[in-house]
Amino acid sequence: MIINGEYRRTIWVKDGDSRLIQTFDQRLFPHEVKIIDVKTSEEAGIAIKDMIVRGAPLIGAMAAYGIYLAAVEFSGDDIITYLNERKDFLNETRPTAINLSWALNEQFNAIQGITSKSAIIEALLNGANKIVEDDVETCRMIGQHGLQIIEEIAADKPGEVVNILTHCNAGWLACIDWGTATSPIYQAHQKGIKVHVWVDETRPRSQGANLTSFELNEQGVPHTLITDNTGGHLMQHNLVDMVIVGTDRTTRSGDVANKIGTYLKALAANDNHVPFYVALPSSTIDWEIRDGVKEIPIEMRSADEVKYVFGKGKNGVESVLICPLTTPAANYGFDVTPARLVTGLITEKGVCAASEEGLISQFPEQKR
Amino acid sequence: MIINGEYRRTIWVKDGDSRLIQTFDQRLFPHEVKIIDVKTSEEAGIAIKDMIVRGAPLIGAMAAYGIYLAAVEFSGDDIITYLNERKDFLNETRPTAINLSWALNEQFNAIQGITSKSAIIEALLNGANKIVEDDVETCRMIGQHGLQIIEEIAADKPGEVVNILTHCNAGWLACIDWGTATSPIYQAHQKGIKVHVWVDETRPRSQGANLTSFELNEQGVPHTLITDNTGGHLMQHNLVDMVIVGTDRTTRSGDVANKIGTYLKALAANDNHVPFYVALPSSTIDWEIRDGVKEIPIEMRSADEVKYVFGKGKNGVESVLICPLTTPAANYGFDVTPARLVTGLITEKGVCAASEEGLISQFPEQKR
Repeated sequence: MIINGEYRRTIWVKDGDSRLIQTFDQRLFPHEVKIIDVKTSEEAGIAIKDMIVRGAPLIGAMAAYGIYLAAVEFSGDDIITYLNERKDFLNETRPTAINLSWALNEQFNAIQGITSKSAIIEALLNGANKIVEDDVETCRMIGQHGLQIIEEIAADKPGEVVNILTHCNAGWLACIDWGTATSPIYQAHQKGIKVHVWVDETRPRSQGANLTSFELNEQGVPHTLITDNTGGHLMQHNLVDMVIVGTDRTTRSGDVANKIGTYLKALAANDNHVPFYVALPSSTIDWEIRDGVKEIPIEMRSADEVKYVFGKGKNGVESVLICPLTTPAANYGFDVTPARLVTGLITEKGVCAASEEGLISQFPEQKR
Repeated sequence: MIINGEYRRTIWVKDGDSRLIQTFDQRLFPHEVKIIDVKTSEEAGIAIKDMIVRGAPLIGAMAAYGIYLAAVEFSGDDIITYLNERKDFLNETRPTAINLSWALNEQFNAIQGITSKSAIIEALLNGANKIVEDDVETCRMIGQHGLQIIEEIAADKPGEVVNILTHCNAGWLACIDWGTATSPIYQAHQKGIKVHVWVDETRPRSQGANLTSFELNEQGVPHTLITDNTGGHLMQHNLVDMVIVGTDRTTRSGDVANKIGTYLKALAANDNHVPFYVALPSSTIDWEIRDGVKEIPIEMRSADEVKYVFGKGKNGVESVLICPLTTPAANYGFDVTPARLVTGLITEKGVCAASEEGLISQFPEQKR
């Protein structure tokens, strides 16, 4: 997609230097566009942990390049032991998104049976590049399938704007290109359908305000920033035609872990008969678990993300304290929306019901 | 209640100068405790409009003193015409809270038939003082009735902490003393019941973070600040025993207008069988309307309250921009929670069902 009028991706191998991975420092959006060099597996892990990169697919891509960089940086005899150690390190940087371990497992599959260091390096670079290219295609396909839903809504209100609410950033900045939840929106916009996006601020970290409004702005998609409290009121007053969100992990029964607050929007959508869709690459499906509320680990992050808000003040970009310094805060990063509240899942394969049956219809190889 | 270890109210007539009303500048909490002088009806209106004071009961009290100050400042022949003009001005400062017009009507009733300026001034000062004293007693009684609910919950989990979630600030800072939603909490705390409060940040304006956590902190009540997105997750995991919120306007059928986002918490409470109570002085009941979603006017406030967050940075108290400067934002101040989602209303008369029947049982004089 576009930043400052130029086509960009969120992560790339530097032209002419295959040992240098580059990415944007997403902590500085929308106030600053800064490119970060990632040269070691350690730096890749830090980029994930410190949320220089975020978003399940992009985390997966960074982890894939991270294990590639581990092979590059290794000097010694037992490269596989070292790669396993770095895999554990990378796996532990963020607990909720399943793409992280998925991407690392893909990479280990790619080097099965290979013994020479140079061949391992080559396979891991190719593997990471493939994860990236596959993600672009996956997101493009999610957009194609989701576009049909938007087209149907548009057909029901000819000439009128289709109002779509989204939470957090499941945009191209969370992926490599297109995004998941935003892909149908971008494709509808490119096709000339009048869309307008209600952007949830998404506290803490305000990824809606910082990232989603930034990327919609850069693409020229009409949008309005709202607080996380507002969606219910809008739905009560018929100001939302559909909700599309992303997910960090989806159970085989269709429960959806996503940024904290998603569940509240799903309840409001349900109460007001507004369709609630979740867009996801199949890599975010955790086929091993059924009950999302009970089984998906929810990341607890620093209290400071709640107590401080990051933004641009008179003296530049900084964080301001919004409560008494001594007030404790709790920072649950995600919540789980039960499948019963989800109208449909949009994957690269199509749209299906949020249920084991629905998912198995798209991925019959997962049938037990 | 207590600020900096001293007993205070939120509004008072200055000792030795009955023409000077004083209040705290609530826009600066928790970072600064600053007292503001209000000397004219104009300043009273600005104090309400600019949210130096906020909270339905406190707005009512400020309006009552405002019309008193109008009488004080008047020089001319037709004081009643002037007072009516100032009444309109004060009435238009905030549209949602009904206490504003209720307090002004009370004041006009108090001067019915009085013609001399000095007698009008005296009646309006007494009237405003009475509104203030009545509010203190009303809030105390709300606390007494709500306390019983907390005691029942505490009895069901002996030795354990009672976890209460609240949204926005329906605390003593929104009233004169005690608060509405916080009154049962303070009374339970004073009685030695172990309570812990989940404080919703409450964007925009962050009154939960700025005010509720401040006042709980000053009173020594255990609490934890959370983002507005978090309540649903906590309820899914049995971490909330009850929700208590305030209201800016309640319909005769028990629909409740309160700070935007209240509806989302009510949906989550309903979905997780968590009791959801609304604490209110009867002055916030609008007996003239039934359908809150359709009939209660919802204030639209400045987009900047969404785009900027106020807090304390390195260089003092300021607002920081959290989105691209060109991103539009919408700022709906309130939403309406339908009566079906409300477990009970706690008024100064007791606890009743959120229904016309329930309310009429407490206020039979309103029967039609």
